[in-house]
Amino acid sequence: MKTNELKSVKLSQDGASVIILDQTALPGEEKYIELNSAEALFEAIYMLRVRGAPAIGIFAAYSLYVLAQQIKTKDYNEFINEVGKISKYLDSSRPTAVNLAAQLRRMEMLIKQNADEKIPQILNAMREEADKIYNEDVEMCKAISEHGLTLIKDGYCIMTQCNAGPIATSKYGTALGPILLGHERGIKLSAYICETRPLLQGARLTAFELDKAGVDSTLICDNMASIVMSEGKINAVFAGCDRVARNGDTANKVGTSALAVLAKHYGIPFYIFGPSTTIDLECASGEEIEIELRKPEEIKEMFFEKPIAPKNVKCYNPSFDVTNNNLITAIITEKGIYKPKGDKTFIF
Amino acid sequence: MKTNELKSVKLSQDGASVIILDQTALPGEEKYIELNSAEALFEAIYMLRVRGAPAIGIFAAYSLYVLAQQIKTKDYNEFINEVGKISKYLDSSRPTAVNLAAQLRRMEMLIKQNADEKIPQILNAMREEADKIYNEDVEMCKAISEHGLTLIKDGYCIMTQCNAGPIATSKYGTALGPILLGHERGIKLSAYICETRPLLQGARLTAFELDKAGVDSTLICDNMASIVMSEGKINAVFAGCDRVARNGDTANKVGTSALAVLAKHYGIPFYIFGPSTTIDLECASGEEIEIELRKPEEIKEMFFEKPIAPKNVKCYNPSFDVTNNNLITAIITEKGIYKPKGDKTFIF
Repeated sequence: MKTNELKSVKLSQDGASVIILDQTALPGEEKYIELNSAEALFEAIYMLRVRGAPAIGIFAAYSLYVLAQQIKTKDYNEFINEVGKISKYLDSSRPTAVNLAAQLRRMEMLIKQNADEKIPQILNAMREEADKIYNEDVEMCKAISEHGLTLIKDGYCIMTQCNAGPIATSKYGTALGPILLGHERGIKLSAYICETRPLLQGARLTAFELDKAGVDSTLICDNMASIVMSEGKINAVFAGCDRVARNGDTANKVGTSALAVLAKHYGIPFYIFGPSTTIDLECASGEEIEIELRKPEEIKEMFFEKPIAPKNVKCYNPSFDVTNNNLITAIITEKGIYKPKGDKTFIF
Repeated sequence: MKTNELKSVKLSQDGASVIILDQTALPGEEKYIELNSAEALFEAIYMLRVRGAPAIGIFAAYSLYVLAQQIKTKDYNEFINEVGKISKYLDSSRPTAVNLAAQLRRMEMLIKQNADEKIPQILNAMREEADKIYNEDVEMCKAISEHGLTLIKDGYCIMTQCNAGPIATSKYGTALGPILLGHERGIKLSAYICETRPLLQGARLTAFELDKAGVDSTLICDNMASIVMSEGKINAVFAGCDRVARNGDTANKVGTSALAVLAKHYGIPFYIFGPSTTIDLECASGEEIEIELRKPEEIKEMFFEKPIAPKNVKCYNPSFDVTNNNLITAIITEKGIYKPKGDKTFIF
């Protein structure tokens, strides 16, 4: 199966359950699981079996449809009341995710707009709306990918980080979209994937997607981005976003700002990709964005079975890098403190 | 045992083997191993059981002494010839650091200076020379630490990376030396430790040393250095070095150059610490330094049992960071490509 045929979220044939690619089993296993109880659907979001803001939104819409079918009533008021409870429950699985709340609200609104219809008709409308949410996401990703493609030339090598690919969305992805679309069209592209500690979404998910698509890609540790850029290997950095302030300040997976500083230093363009809904016009600048702090165990312990990356992915593993003398304030040996001279070089 | 009483490399009582603190077993276990075959000594360097340029230098000198005792000849020419082969073999274990080659050369030179002596006398001289190398390293580390202390003020928070502490040297360490010496003298200091992928020397070794010494320290993933600096938490970055070119370009653990670029961006002083022997006057600039490439499995698989850091170490685990708008070339949504305006902010 090609990467773009991967469907991380879909409805089962009979419409009675949601089928997801269990992202926690990647890259070791491509495991699809079928979910139809409120508890199982909740758990899938909470445990990151389904992740990526757009994918979670799609999943929430299908989940609400699946669970709405199980409500045993012909009365509209009882029905909307029950849907409300389910929606609130699903929403509480990851309270910070914007798309989750937004798509659940959209589905509830739709039901209210169809208040005069009978329950079976409302259910049909819900299924159509969930499909619409999915299809809109496909169109959104395609449009982002097309725009992104105009920034790419044949032979480009792109550095990416975290995961903003097909499994985090419906198809193509956002930051990964231009690479996958370009590759489909026969443009020669390659990628360097930063592994993205602590949860290794780059190594586990992006490497999996690019490997499956057949894009020439190389996995590195996050601290290797500088040497790779310094060697002239990177033409552009592509990153996703979780929230963009009105002035363009962008919150994304930790490490994104480091790649941006490095890209600027090495004269490499740095691009942010995301749906326009991610731009928060209420938010004046990055200073207003609250940063989620997660538990220490994510850093101190390893949650993943080995291997942590697809078997075939190439790795670049330099043990050292060279720091240019113009970046060094002083070099201290047992003989004293050496500071750079006027021409920025050291004389020992 | 206090951090400064740790001895990462020493000769056994009978002088027939080298005893090392197996750094690959840390932080879980403080395991000492006794080595006396060429293969085991080579493997200890290659597998990073002993690591840190000064510690490797000391280890190489003792190793050559241990192996020289096993040469079954009374003839000087045969002896020096055999020593040369062993030296070349040990030297091939790691290419980048200067100390390994330098201390092996020093031991060979010593033998040549004693060409008129009998083999037992030469062996005695070798043992004395290896002890001298060790003691010189203690003095050297102390001197570096004193110089480094003049760069520190009470209340400073230092960012470190990889491991340049006592177990990488003889005592105190180089980049970690001023922190440990300052702490000993009651100066209030704290540290942010970058974990240093792929082999996690920061998490496993530096966190172990600072925890043991009682220095207030916080472990982060390498991709979190940018957010920590941006929050104004860091007063200086201290890094070790494996080779310094004549112009000051410095080779050190991969990721060092990223910290230097970030430090410059955030206006934080960036200091390199190392013995003067690390300055390679034969080497004009960083371009001439060979970078060791290691195997992909170090990135793709996890070699360490959990936990990968001392139980008590504090962690800072932000899930996101904010990228300043002046670092972003363009933001791409499904609606198009937004570039920053004249004042460097975006208007959506």
